[in-house]
Amino acid sequence: MISRRVFLGGLAAVSTGAATRLFAEPGAGLHVDALKLRERLEALSLFGRPAGGAFADGVSRVAYSDADIAGRRYVIGLMDAAGLKPRIDPAGNIYGTRPGADPSLQPILFGSHIDSVPSGGNFDGDLGSLAALGAMEALEAAGVRTRHPLEMVVWAHEEGVAFTRGLACSRIVAGDIKPADLDEVWNGMRRADAIRRIGGDPDRILEARRPKGSIRCYFELHIEQGGNLEQAGIPIGVVEGIVAIDRYDVAVTGFANHAGTTPMAGRQDALVAAAELTVAVREIVTSEPGRQVGTVGHLEILPNAPNVIPGMARLTIEVRDLSPEKLRRLGDAIRARAREIAAATRTTIDLEPASLAPSAAASPDVQRAIERAAESLALKSMRLPSGAGHDAQMMAQIAPMGMIFVPSIGGISHSPKELTRWEDCAHGADVLVRAVVEMDRSG
Amino acid sequence: MISRRVFLGGLAAVSTGAATRLFAEPGAGLHVDALKLRERLEALSLFGRPAGGAFADGVSRVAYSDADIAGRRYVIGLMDAAGLKPRIDPAGNIYGTRPGADPSLQPILFGSHIDSVPSGGNFDGDLGSLAALGAMEALEAAGVRTRHPLEMVVWAHEEGVAFTRGLACSRIVAGDIKPADLDEVWNGMRRADAIRRIGGDPDRILEARRPKGSIRCYFELHIEQGGNLEQAGIPIGVVEGIVAIDRYDVAVTGFANHAGTTPMAGRQDALVAAAELTVAVREIVTSEPGRQVGTVGHLEILPNAPNVIPGMARLTIEVRDLSPEKLRRLGDAIRARAREIAAATRTTIDLEPASLAPSAAASPDVQRAIERAAESLALKSMRLPSGAGHDAQMMAQIAPMGMIFVPSIGGISHSPKELTRWEDCAHGADVLVRAVVEMDRSG
Repeated sequence: MISRRVFLGGLAAVSTGAATRLFAEPGAGLHVDALKLRERLEALSLFGRPAGGAFADGVSRVAYSDADIAGRRYVIGLMDAAGLKPRIDPAGNIYGTRPGADPSLQPILFGSHIDSVPSGGNFDGDLGSLAALGAMEALEAAGVRTRHPLEMVVWAHEEGVAFTRGLACSRIVAGDIKPADLDEVWNGMRRADAIRRIGGDPDRILEARRPKGSIRCYFELHIEQGGNLEQAGIPIGVVEGIVAIDRYDVAVTGFANHAGTTPMAGRQDALVAAAELTVAVREIVTSEPGRQVGTVGHLEILPNAPNVIPGMARLTIEVRDLSPEKLRRLGDAIRARAREIAAATRTTIDLEPASLAPSAAASPDVQRAIERAAESLALKSMRLPSGAGHDAQMMAQIAPMGMIFVPSIGGISHSPKELTRWEDCAHGADVLVRAVVEMDRSG
Repeated sequence: MISRRVFLGGLAAVSTGAATRLFAEPGAGLHVDALKLRERLEALSLFGRPAGGAFADGVSRVAYSDADIAGRRYVIGLMDAAGLKPRIDPAGNIYGTRPGADPSLQPILFGSHIDSVPSGGNFDGDLGSLAALGAMEALEAAGVRTRHPLEMVVWAHEEGVAFTRGLACSRIVAGDIKPADLDEVWNGMRRADAIRRIGGDPDRILEARRPKGSIRCYFELHIEQGGNLEQAGIPIGVVEGIVAIDRYDVAVTGFANHAGTTPMAGRQDALVAAAELTVAVREIVTSEPGRQVGTVGHLEILPNAPNVIPGMARLTIEVRDLSPEKLRRLGDAIRARAREIAAATRTTIDLEPASLAPSAAASPDVQRAIERAAESLALKSMRLPSGAGHDAQMMAQIAPMGMIFVPSIGGISHSPKELTRWEDCAHGADVLVRAVVEMDRSG
């Protein structure tokens, strides 16, 4: 009821009879085949599964590996059978198209990726990729003709495991590619050769770019990878944006000395300073309300012997939030505490800041379309930021973007233990197809 | 003046004329040749010096290495020239003897070691070894005939770098040797072969043992390796004993998860727990007066990636003090705090205790002899524990033991920067020879 009222309010100008029925209940009756979605997720999990393992043992389908190539071949086969005329762009991304009623309109794009981290799970990327295919099939089965052409995409190399961090192939589509990037060597493989290996064409790499404004909007269904939805008992997350990441590479310099003969008062213990800083990061990040997170994930000390006072520590601090102002404020507080700790421990603490990623806001229109789609299914939804990076971050640079999250059990991801209930997978896919129809009708 | 009064009070029964003179000013006029001591320390530093380096670049004279063997040959040559008839025992320790007036008396033993840690300094062990030789020469030059036979010793493999920790060759002399120890392989070398390499005889290893009560007493002159003497401005330290070492191998188990998507409240961060424990160790150890020390010297985390919450941390806690009761109390406090931290961080913290070394008390008589010797030279002295392990620790099991410390500049040791002023080296050697004479006269 609510969904109809909101919708009609927004689009009162529309008038044809058939369209009115669809508008009144956008995507009404549309459902992705939940059983097929599950079967395909299980089938895809075979490519990169540990020898002798089961679905619950996760997957290692690192980009450009044999498992990745076999998994891509499986998905391309499904897309072909669905009549989507799959093609591989010069960067190695897989596209499939369903024509719209008005070929002059920009396409609506949706999808995800199927590469994984080593020892990853079977939902991260896979769900959004196979749900995109399921959405195409659901529209076909229901005889729904959209106005905009529809495109699904399986992005290559999302996880950034191969080659330099952040060189996901969606980045190439957004225009961020330099010829020198193709010369990078990883695992004995030149990047150009890796792209060729999955059917791309490095010599025409610039043709993979899509200009800003050429895509109506981009959708991505993804597991949350955090515990917010599960804890709130809400099946659908509407992503407000993808957080910015500030990183600090920290060097603590003390003085290595004998752990037995050096009095406590005479020590310049780099680990004590690093430990106080680690505790301080947590204190500072949790000292104000909000969803910001802060992590010391990497720490190494020298000489790292039980009977020697650590003389050196290197650590990383990562702080993530949607708001650049908040990140700046947290960074200032961390720096101030580092100065106090250095003075108290008689060490030197150097913080080298690096902005790893700016935040990427989701389009308000696309967020509303997702909320309406969830309402049409009587599914509760909540807005939340994405703490992880996604291909949607790149797409935000060239198109209105939105993401649909479904609950991760225990908030676990990048692990074989990554798990989302089949029912939640199906709900997410249904929201995806209905949100696509919403956006098709509204612009 | 004070020294005479104290001394006469203690030994009023002695009566012969010549002896009275010596007793009134024990070892009066005795001085170790300071220039020769310095020249020999500089000459010894060549064996294991980094290529192209200077004295200040330290030494790598690891036990059983070519440098160790060359250094031993140099010292044996000096001992031979001094008429000490050097011999190597089956464990590889070098002894030299000066007969006493009464062959029925037990020998007074003194010395140290000349092996080093990798990138070590030129005073740790070297000073006590060459000062022992200088003491023998000083007695000869002054025509002093002791009642007890005198023995100097250069212990083999003190630093415990080769083979298992703590298997110093003085330990063999104290009776702690098992045949299986000789089969251990380090650096491609069987221990039995290593002992043969330095002139020992592993087939007769048990003959290296010296029974309890067979040695009048053991002296060792050593650099402090800490900063207490330098800070107090006192040239001579009288060691009260060698501290016990309690070690805890700690495993912290949290849960590795995505650093971007896992809310702060939902984390089980093993590094945050390890950091709190590291800070707590310092707090607890410094919460009561005394010279106890506590160190987290080793820490490793998994997976140790900037964008992953650490799921596992392994660290070592070492606590040292002369008093086993204090160590137990500190250990209890650390365990209690670990329980609190585990509960607050939702991690598991396992502490595996190991007593690495019991404390070894110096003999009160030997300590007093050292103090009187210092007084006879008008040198201030102070009592202090040894925070580091020494061969004297093994000797304490079979004989009354005492150690003389001289100041380490900046408290630095096990480093090329290890440094003791030549004047302090000479003072220490003079105290050694006079303390030997004290003990010779007093029992």
